[in-house]
Amino acid sequence: MADLKSAFLKVYPQFKSDLLQDPAFEITHDSRQWVDRMLDYNLLGGKLNRGLSVIDSYQLLDEGEELTEDEIFLASVLGWCIEWLQAYFLVLDDIMDNSHTRRGHPCWFRVPKVGLIAVNDGVLLRNHICRILKIHFRGKPYYIDLLDLFNEVEFQTASGQMIDLITTLEGEKDLSKYSLLHHCRIVQHKTAYYSFYLPVACALVMSGENLDNHIDVKNILVDMGIYFQVQDDYLDCFGNPETIGKIGTDIEDFKCSWLVVKALEVCNEEQKIVLYEHYGKADPVDVAKVKALYNELNLKVAFEEYESKSYEKLISSIEAYPIQAVQAVLKSFLEKIYKR
Amino acid sequence: MADLKSAFLKVYPQFKSDLLQDPAFEITHDSRQWVDRMLDYNLLGGKLNRGLSVIDSYQLLDEGEELTEDEIFLASVLGWCIEWLQAYFLVLDDIMDNSHTRRGHPCWFRVPKVGLIAVNDGVLLRNHICRILKIHFRGKPYYIDLLDLFNEVEFQTASGQMIDLITTLEGEKDLSKYSLLHHCRIVQHKTAYYSFYLPVACALVMSGENLDNHIDVKNILVDMGIYFQVQDDYLDCFGNPETIGKIGTDIEDFKCSWLVVKALEVCNEEQKIVLYEHYGKADPVDVAKVKALYNELNLKVAFEEYESKSYEKLISSIEAYPIQAVQAVLKSFLEKIYKR
Repeated sequence: MADLKSAFLKVYPQFKSDLLQDPAFEITHDSRQWVDRMLDYNLLGGKLNRGLSVIDSYQLLDEGEELTEDEIFLASVLGWCIEWLQAYFLVLDDIMDNSHTRRGHPCWFRVPKVGLIAVNDGVLLRNHICRILKIHFRGKPYYIDLLDLFNEVEFQTASGQMIDLITTLEGEKDLSKYSLLHHCRIVQHKTAYYSFYLPVACALVMSGENLDNHIDVKNILVDMGIYFQVQDDYLDCFGNPETIGKIGTDIEDFKCSWLVVKALEVCNEEQKIVLYEHYGKADPVDVAKVKALYNELNLKVAFEEYESKSYEKLISSIEAYPIQAVQAVLKSFLEKIYKR
Repeated sequence: MADLKSAFLKVYPQFKSDLLQDPAFEITHDSRQWVDRMLDYNLLGGKLNRGLSVIDSYQLLDEGEELTEDEIFLASVLGWCIEWLQAYFLVLDDIMDNSHTRRGHPCWFRVPKVGLIAVNDGVLLRNHICRILKIHFRGKPYYIDLLDLFNEVEFQTASGQMIDLITTLEGEKDLSKYSLLHHCRIVQHKTAYYSFYLPVACALVMSGENLDNHIDVKNILVDMGIYFQVQDDYLDCFGNPETIGKIGTDIEDFKCSWLVVKALEVCNEEQKIVLYEHYGKADPVDVAKVKALYNELNLKVAFEEYESKSYEKLISSIEAYPIQAVQAVLKSFLEKIYKR
């Protein structure tokens, strides 16, 4: 495991150097420095879970055979492409959300002299994926499937982002638009596709599989992604800040969190008035009122019920899947996130 | 000609409807309305020259054979993809440049309630290209070449945009960074690839050609794109606003225009001081001083010399090209822009 992570980390400098010396583009000294710094700033410092899980998944699909160096390398390439995709999304999301920090540092667009150049840096990050795929996969029979896959996942993510953004248009805080269905739709598109489906899909494509034969894998992983996000929403309010590594601000930020949509579903008219009055305000007094209401509504219990039901449903879908090796991949994903 | 334009325009509603009913994404009513309006706002109202020239070029490559309905349709698809690509660039560029108007209307991000959601709209526009290509070309033997082509051109454009942006970092106006070479590098990447090379490359790919056998076509069209941009820079200052349809503000905006880099090349020390003092200021008194210097330096004559030399060079490169039909395409492009 530690070996795979170090193998994964080892290839990053090579990619960066491939991109900085790309013969398609006579890069100037200033640009090279800019891109170099921009890549380090936005690609490193995270947990790299998505990228690493491509190698894990590929190994499980290979049913325990020892991976060749070439296989580890190619799976790492795809893993890094997912990290690149995530960096692209985060750079642009932080601009749109007017965020302040990311992974404990100022967001890239807040770094002095960067500003809105970050928009173009996001575009460059997205373009790097195609450059990397072209260098390492152009000759493979599944090259076209990889391009289609990254394109589709990016489209799903951007579509989810759109639903999220236009629900809460600037200056309009309207709780009546929030519902479980709406929450699920945003999460499915904006997070689940690229975080859960994409790593496994990359491993499947690299194993020579046709993704059209694995629609259920997509459905199960998207469901797992939704479950993961619900957990995340729960922990934002009820988790220990030291364990989760951040202080949650979903209530202050008027986020379409699972907790608020669940609260809206189960509350009575009087309680609804409390939510409408206090949700989305920065004052700790308002936040405390919302939290008190969550407790009054027993949302901890509701979450535990949701959690065990989701787990059972996921396990039974996984066990119904006809291919053992794929089951192993899916179970390994689930075990990583269940009751984290 | 008018027929081709009307055939081209006729397919736009179909594309839009394909995208709005995309089965990959269960779009909500609000999102559908948003995308519908966003597309009309950013795709219509321009001259559509880039898109139309795919059909023109394809027809010339076909050496005067009457195009079938299917051929006109597919060439239109590619033409619209270029228009989509341009819309994507313009939406994001306007945000980064903090521009006010585009094609006589407020820039998309300045439309009430849009704001920075425009960043994601730009991403969606880019994603639409892949959706459109997949619907209409997935089964063609050259599908992969189209994806690679659009990816490469996008990468060149984003790289040009980067050089442009980091030269004039926020709050730093430094004329010493401007030179003919620098100007040429920005223009080549940021404009020439997608405006000149891409339409012809699309037509070549659709004709079954391998682009690797047409490197000179790329070089000639990129040179033509540079010539076009120099003209544009010249007209920004010396053109008739009624003819060119806008009032130029390159001097006020501290643009790396061909005129200022040419002026820097030929001026003496005293004149250089004038440029350093007055370039990039909004006051009409400063602008007038720069214009007076341009006249003193005979930049009109310098431009005319540049224009006729470029034309001769382009014509002789074109005539050296071994394939008659390709020569015809290139000449037709050149005639459209020479002494416009």
